[in-house]
Amino acid sequence: MTAVAVVGRGRELVEPALRDAVSRLDDDTRLVASYHLGWNDSDGRPVDGNGGKGVRPGLLMLVGESLGGAPADLLPGAVAVELVHNFSLIHDDLMDRDTERRHRRTVWSIWGDATAVLVGDALLSLAHEILAESGSPHAAAAERSLSLATRELIRGQVLDVAFERRDDVTLTQCIDMAAGKTGSLLSVSTELGALLSGAPAEVSAAFAEFGAEVGIAFQLVDDLLGIWGWPERTGKPVFSDLRSRKKTMPVVWATTHGGLAGRQLADWLADTSSEPTEADLRQAADLVERAGGRHWAHEEALARVALAHNALAGVGLDLAHRAELDRLAAFVVERDL
Amino acid sequence: MTAVAVVGRGRELVEPALRDAVSRLDDDTRLVASYHLGWNDSDGRPVDGNGGKGVRPGLLMLVGESLGGAPADLLPGAVAVELVHNFSLIHDDLMDRDTERRHRRTVWSIWGDATAVLVGDALLSLAHEILAESGSPHAAAAERSLSLATRELIRGQVLDVAFERRDDVTLTQCIDMAAGKTGSLLSVSTELGALLSGAPAEVSAAFAEFGAEVGIAFQLVDDLLGIWGWPERTGKPVFSDLRSRKKTMPVVWATTHGGLAGRQLADWLADTSSEPTEADLRQAADLVERAGGRHWAHEEALARVALAHNALAGVGLDLAHRAELDRLAAFVVERDL
Repeated sequence: MTAVAVVGRGRELVEPALRDAVSRLDDDTRLVASYHLGWNDSDGRPVDGNGGKGVRPGLLMLVGESLGGAPADLLPGAVAVELVHNFSLIHDDLMDRDTERRHRRTVWSIWGDATAVLVGDALLSLAHEILAESGSPHAAAAERSLSLATRELIRGQVLDVAFERRDDVTLTQCIDMAAGKTGSLLSVSTELGALLSGAPAEVSAAFAEFGAEVGIAFQLVDDLLGIWGWPERTGKPVFSDLRSRKKTMPVVWATTHGGLAGRQLADWLADTSSEPTEADLRQAADLVERAGGRHWAHEEALARVALAHNALAGVGLDLAHRAELDRLAAFVVERDL
Repeated sequence: MTAVAVVGRGRELVEPALRDAVSRLDDDTRLVASYHLGWNDSDGRPVDGNGGKGVRPGLLMLVGESLGGAPADLLPGAVAVELVHNFSLIHDDLMDRDTERRHRRTVWSIWGDATAVLVGDALLSLAHEILAESGSPHAAAAERSLSLATRELIRGQVLDVAFERRDDVTLTQCIDMAAGKTGSLLSVSTELGALLSGAPAEVSAAFAEFGAEVGIAFQLVDDLLGIWGWPERTGKPVFSDLRSRKKTMPVVWATTHGGLAGRQLADWLADTSSEPTEADLRQAADLVERAGGRHWAHEEALARVALAHNALAGVGLDLAHRAELDRLAAFVVERDL
């Protein structure tokens, strides 16, 4: 099975349980949550949407099954991580004042701030509810891991908000932020896959590390896409993260380790006197590349995938499952969806 | 022991554990959370503050001890309900755009929207973390009850936000909203007191009902205070809820069951053409009273306290503990703090 198929299968397995969970919400909250998840339009009419790739539940199910876990024991965890992911998206869109996600208007931009706060809160609570009533002997341990990961996610977002107002962010801080914002939830997804299968603590810990490394790789690739997009597909870069002068990992690598080109990039980022033209943005992207930021981010992503592979060395998986997880990690980096 | 002393003792027992929990947060989040809890000013300097009355943890500890629960088994629950309460206050202040709470500026009004969202989210996650790692054999059941109560709380706030834009709110809907916004968290506080003591399911359910009824009584008194304040203390009414034309329970009773005076009140509420003067507000308060809304709310609060008493009839508490719980319920209504 290809990595894409694995994730797609995860999403298909989880969707009925996710719909079931969301159906518990009160009418107003359910309408908004179902819109956000891509199941209906803002008036409640069903749509054939794309509610996201389901990477987190897909990973959780794959890890669990590779350890012999029964799908029924894994599903509450898969639903919970997807709910926490969507809680964070709804709140992040509000905080960042983003008006679009997946080519659709964001929740706050349609229903206002209060609704975005409340629907996010409801999804976070619902995640804990689903996990708590799973009946799993590992429910309390899973709740603890999910709570810790959510706090890490929030810590990452706190740093992200703070970094916007700073121009002295170090690479270490920047990677730490990515570990929080992206690594924590991927990490708890793979960890819960092991935990809910009844794996011993050291195996769950190994899978937590696997997911954390895959998460940082994932974010590095996201940062590259935020500058260069899919040039081999669309033929043109997007520059979106440069337009917003976002301090992503390749940019911070460039400004802190990139010599003259890096210093020129730092000057360009600091000069907010005028709106950048397309030519300015292309020049800034070239500075990131000449400073070595693009190359570094790509190499670092591959190094993280290797660390993810190594994390599972002592776990005793059979070769087929190990290869499947490696493929999945590689796929996250290739993003060949 | 007086009811005030009981709640005060609950707060004192819980505060060290609450401080311990909050100390886990990252530096930025901890500063803001500690400010909100009344422990420091907005620069982090310790203050002798009043971080709220601790009614919820006080109730939880009292219920638990009356059933023979050990304080150490109850503390994680007490910390969790206080954290959820404060999560909801921080988010509510943001949504309602309230700039003051307990005579201090609110979190969003000092640090902005994003910080209020994130600090609230962090406290909600922390609540689940503390409960999940309690080691209690009842942790998963407690997590489930806390999640359900939080969703009820959110449902109440969703209704509250929606009611602001409606002028056809019925009394039943209004009481349902109060049950969500105030009843749910008081109910889970008393329920967890029983649950974490290892009480049988029917005893926990009886205590959940006790807390729910006390919660509605509590909100009825709050609604009365929002119109008439503490006239016997300050000598003047506050009218604050009338100024914001809030559809509180006594007001909705008056407009839906209050005859001519009630209809006059409804007309006054609907006419938003000008800012009301003090004389207008006094007249509106008189209409609520003449329509019978003040009397009804007071009687209804007493009736709810009686229902709370009855809920514990089959629980088999000794008389001293039962009397203490009755006193506490009565005290919530008298609010003689």
